Amino acid sequence: MALIGVFDSGVGGITVLKTLAQQFQIHDFIYLGDTARLPYGSKSPLTIRKYSKQVMENLASRKVDAIVIACNSASSQITEKKWKHIPLFNVIDPGARTALEASLTKKIGVLGTRATVNSGIYAEKIKALEPSSQVFSQSCPLFVPLVEEAWIDDPVANLIVYRYVQPLIQHQIDTVILGCTHYPLLSSAIQKALGNGVKLVDSAHAICDEMRKDFSAGNENKNRKIQLLLTDSSPHSQAWAEEIFLPLKFTSIEVVDLI
Amino acid sequence: MALIGVFDSGVGGITVLKTLAQQFQIHDFIYLGDTARLPYGSKSPLTIRKYSKQVMENLASRKVDAIVIACNSASSQITEKKWKHIPLFNVIDPGARTALEASLTKKIGVLGTRATVNSGIYAEKIKALEPSSQVFSQSCPLFVPLVEEAWIDDPVANLIVYRYVQPLIQHQIDTVILGCTHYPLLSSAIQKALGNGVKLVDSAHAICDEMRKDFSAGNENKNRKIQLLLTDSSPHSQAWAEEIFLPLKFTSIEVVDLI
Repeated sequence: MALIGVFDSGVGGITVLKTLAQQFQIHDFIYLGDTARLPYGSKSPLTIRKYSKQVMENLASRKVDAIVIACNSASSQITEKKWKHIPLFNVIDPGARTALEASLTKKIGVLGTRATVNSGIYAEKIKALEPSSQVFSQSCPLFVPLVEEAWIDDPVANLIVYRYVQPLIQHQIDTVILGCTHYPLLSSAIQKALGNGVKLVDSAHAICDEMRKDFSAGNENKNRKIQLLLTDSSPHSQAWAEEIFLPLKFTSIEVVDLI
Repeated sequence: MALIGVFDSGVGGITVLKTLAQQFQIHDFIYLGDTARLPYGSKSPLTIRKYSKQVMENLASRKVDAIVIACNSASSQITEKKWKHIPLFNVIDPGARTALEASLTKKIGVLGTRATVNSGIYAEKIKALEPSSQVFSQSCPLFVPLVEEAWIDDPVANLIVYRYVQPLIQHQIDTVILGCTHYPLLSSAIQKALGNGVKLVDSAHAICDEMRKDFSAGNENKNRKIQLLLTDSSPHSQAWAEEIFLPLKFTSIEVVDLI
């Protein structure tokens, strides 16, 4: 039985935690959402790296056996495979691999935050695996606030989604990576805008396939712990965190100070 | 000649700095935008207070003669009149007073971030001045990201603005406080949604009236300094900061680390 640490700038990465917790039912989890400094995706590489390291420092002090970077913006800056002897899993590598497997035309779209898109990391990883592929990226700065506001099944969401994905459609992509852990919550609006012919790749499922190599799924452990740590205690973000995690429940919720 | 410190969670407060710098042409200014931790408006009172104090600590070390809290979310938490013997000016008090002067019906609307609206500070200040007044508040979490994305004169902005201001119209308010320093950049969309009969109160002008009691406007000083400090160095936020400040220019731009 292992203790797996998962982190994100906010509550969006709970979409990843939920899939992991459902797939690996024997293990304990700690999720740390850096809600005090959310979002990371509009910030510079240096700041994202600094904040991510402070989060990992905290998780390391809790003796986690692995750290899942459930945030594309952080994954684009923390590309190491280990940190202080703790194995690191980022969302970029499995997302890139899954997209290539899904795509027939090898024309792949990436939707992400400004930080992730500017890093060029998805294009780099995809082209390293398949040099003939073409990658078209689009940053979508309003997606995270839309999800944080919980305007998901909404005409405003549809309009904003359509505006951002329109350039990808023109490039005739057949597969799109949801390159931010908030975006799966907008997937029905994104699918509608792209049309049913386009496949969506969700990091959560891709990372599970990756982790299955090192961690057993195991039988359900009813006494396991799934802790939620947040760096800021706003009631809105806590309630939204619990709602995203349903039908699962956190065994404890705590506010922590990183610095 | 004085050195006036101005701060905000991001670049929105530059709308206030610009008005101050145009009105008080003899003085030097330092603007500190805490872009590494932006936005404040979705965070808890405790975190907003902690971050604001770290910013004020930095401004105090630069020997400013006064600090203008050009951020409503921070102003809602830092209500002291002095800090370490430095006079503090927040945007709430002058905004409340100006709105009451402008309103005939004493039915006043407040648009703000979740932090500002939840604090109830505008309603408290307005009712202390005029107990018969009625205050209707609406938090608008998508306004700051819209402005940061620079989608201002845009159908998406119009739709979002209309959604948020609709409840205020039903209360037949005749005056609305733009309770966030980002919002004046959306004022034409807000005016359109509210109709021309409703007066908009912009904190920048209100705070100038307040400061005129303590600071002379003076003659233009061509050699004065207006420094821009940002806690994060994203090229997007720096460019947007310079654009908002036009036709004025910063004499220097620097990235600072608060912690």
